Amino acid sequence: MTDRLVIIGGDAGGMAAVSQVRKQQREREIVALERGRWTSYSACGIPYFVAGEVTELDQLVARSPEEHRSKGRIDLRMRSEATEIDLDARQVEVLDHESGTTYRLDFDELLIGTGGRPIRPPLPGIDLPFVHGVQTLGDAERLMAAATASECKHVAVVGGGYIGLEIAEAFCLRGIEVHLFEAAPEVMSTLDPDMGALVTAAMRRNGVTVHTSTPVVGFDEGSVHTSAGVHHADLVVLGIGVGPESALAERAGLALGPKKAIHVDRRQQTSAEGVWAAGDCADSLHRVSGERVHVALGTVANKQARVAGINIGGGYATFPGVLGTAITRLCDTEIARTGLTEVEAGRAGFSAAPVVVRATTSAHYMPNSGPMTVKLVVERGTARVLGAQIVGAHGAAKRIDTCATAIWSGMSTRDLVDLDLSYAPPFSGVWDPVQVAAREAEKVV
Amino acid sequence: MTDRLVIIGGDAGGMAAVSQVRKQQREREIVALERGRWTSYSACGIPYFVAGEVTELDQLVARSPEEHRSKGRIDLRMRSEATEIDLDARQVEVLDHESGTTYRLDFDELLIGTGGRPIRPPLPGIDLPFVHGVQTLGDAERLMAAATASECKHVAVVGGGYIGLEIAEAFCLRGIEVHLFEAAPEVMSTLDPDMGALVTAAMRRNGVTVHTSTPVVGFDEGSVHTSAGVHHADLVVLGIGVGPESALAERAGLALGPKKAIHVDRRQQTSAEGVWAAGDCADSLHRVSGERVHVALGTVANKQARVAGINIGGGYATFPGVLGTAITRLCDTEIARTGLTEVEAGRAGFSAAPVVVRATTSAHYMPNSGPMTVKLVVERGTARVLGAQIVGAHGAAKRIDTCATAIWSGMSTRDLVDLDLSYAPPFSGVWDPVQVAAREAEKVV
Repeated sequence: MTDRLVIIGGDAGGMAAVSQVRKQQREREIVALERGRWTSYSACGIPYFVAGEVTELDQLVARSPEEHRSKGRIDLRMRSEATEIDLDARQVEVLDHESGTTYRLDFDELLIGTGGRPIRPPLPGIDLPFVHGVQTLGDAERLMAAATASECKHVAVVGGGYIGLEIAEAFCLRGIEVHLFEAAPEVMSTLDPDMGALVTAAMRRNGVTVHTSTPVVGFDEGSVHTSAGVHHADLVVLGIGVGPESALAERAGLALGPKKAIHVDRRQQTSAEGVWAAGDCADSLHRVSGERVHVALGTVANKQARVAGINIGGGYATFPGVLGTAITRLCDTEIARTGLTEVEAGRAGFSAAPVVVRATTSAHYMPNSGPMTVKLVVERGTARVLGAQIVGAHGAAKRIDTCATAIWSGMSTRDLVDLDLSYAPPFSGVWDPVQVAAREAEKVV
Repeated sequence: MTDRLVIIGGDAGGMAAVSQVRKQQREREIVALERGRWTSYSACGIPYFVAGEVTELDQLVARSPEEHRSKGRIDLRMRSEATEIDLDARQVEVLDHESGTTYRLDFDELLIGTGGRPIRPPLPGIDLPFVHGVQTLGDAERLMAAATASECKHVAVVGGGYIGLEIAEAFCLRGIEVHLFEAAPEVMSTLDPDMGALVTAAMRRNGVTVHTSTPVVGFDEGSVHTSAGVHHADLVVLGIGVGPESALAERAGLALGPKKAIHVDRRQQTSAEGVWAAGDCADSLHRVSGERVHVALGTVANKQARVAGINIGGGYATFPGVLGTAITRLCDTEIARTGLTEVEAGRAGFSAAPVVVRATTSAHYMPNSGPMTVKLVVERGTARVLGAQIVGAHGAAKRIDTCATAIWSGMSTRDLVDLDLSYAPPFSGVWDPVQVAAREAEKVV
């Protein structure tokens, strides 16, 4: 019997587990399979590569295949795709894209870190080559080649979420005309519509032509068909969201959670003993709603893989769940959220009161001061903070971490007001905007 | 019998209580005494006025005497100094600087918000007119007049704390040669020496000539005498720290705490019934050490005054204590701290382990990425985070609020690692530097 650990996927969800296994099991046999040509890269960095802020794709690679092999002492097989998992035989079927051959690989334990993939709704023409997703460095290479082609003058972005926003910013910075199509009334549907409206306005201020309430219905080469007519585009980028890459797990019969993400327990074990999953392919517990959710974020992937690695190595660790904290930037505007939005809180059954305040990023008399809007979602009765959203000028958004830490601890608005946060005129007003919002919320709930 | 509330001091410690009283007692008679010419101003903003970033002194005034009178409906008496408190007679003796007359004023309740004053050690020549303190807007006016005089080419700053640093930066920005004298081996003694050394280096990098381990022993007109010789200076600024302005309270027989700050209970009441104190003149509970401390900061003053106002108005509120959170900027370098330093933790009887990590403010491949150093002080055994210090490039320091919120909740390094903090390449690495430090600390404790 082998004591082999097989890891499927060469990015964070799989590979961030290796060092935790190695700390406990120096001699364990570890085989890792990656279907692409890169390992441990920052997909989140791709928009900044497209924008030209990051000049070399290699800069986005945190650890190359060679480094994984030497430092992790693993048998890393590149261009090797797991095509089936046979749970009874404890085997993975592997397609070697170099040789075109297929073989079966025994495992004692398995870690599935297959990641996510851009959602591609079944629209006519969506598989045309000018329609791009942004997930792997291969995607980035193809997108960049298309973007820098001299005939690329008009870009259409479908979807106004994080990726849509960041890619729109990237093309704007390259001086290319960008049209963004969003089916909802405002972009950034991970925010409440009132906060999303601030982002829509910021996009327009920064030169993106935003078409809200305008679903895309299909594509022809060189054009995007929408509910409001046909638009010319040399290049289309999908920013509709990321779903879990869980088809392999589903075929193997593993239990799935929301959005077909692989269901895991608190130790990151799937429904099969000794089979683990982590990262964008797995589900998570939302700490506020108490529900299982699918959150595809690098932070979560790294944390889950760390927990999986500790458990695989024979230790004990649990993943405590997520708040859905996220942050992004659109030129001069910063955007962040954590916990539940007002809409989500209602859906989760909370009676929640929203509070929105306008404040400034630093003392109002400082020349670097800019506007920022903070929205808190607060449970009635208990005054517990359920969620926070921030849209504002430079320096605004990282304050979401204060909210995330407070929500993590179950703090009330009272606790938030009491907190001893930092103040100096270049950084904040004497009451941090988060506390200004909490004071306002105290009056309401 | 009167039901008069008398407030001594027209800045945050006193005046921030008014709105809380008014919410509950619309008709209460309130008399406020301010010996100077300004109310509710930002002393923290003075360095930025000296630097020229803030152009008008009035911009630092949050609420003018006229606004206090109309909005707070109070009898505000400017240039009126409380010279004695008679607790038995329930009277304050008031000197009217305009008329030169003295009168006695009955009070039912008294709120002392006399603030702080720059520490002036009894050195020869310290009362010479070219030696300035920076506390009131009057100080700022005098300092600015001296600074813009054509003969002001050399400035000496005595003490390398927050005010010393900020004033040194201000004069640097004006193109004036600045020498800073610090008795300790490093500046910023509110940090541990290893972190202070980073600030000393940053000051030098930004053109300030820093003389460490160089106590000042006295002054002559135009020169500063130090342990290492005599230096020419057209102007001297004291940045040795701020002590409580508590002489009045002491003479009245009120109990005093550390550094002679007025001792208050959790509701901000002094040792005398119906006599309250808030702000830089009062003491506080340090939540980590459990000891009484004197912390002179605008955030604390506003919070304490709010609590005092609620209680005076007949409500119930308590001040939950401080962590000593503070932040400042020195040109390209940001500096912040919260909780206990390694030195303070040792003094408070903790067995604490320090962890120092170097990270970057944003993803290492982003052009806006700069270095940042995080130091965590962690209790052995429990792994509870006792304190944090940050020195780094733009974007580094406000992260101290995450640490402050975590310490407030009694979090361990494990909790800090688990937190769902925000990540996107322009803002952070995938593990926030605070979490990188917490992970490192986990290995140590």
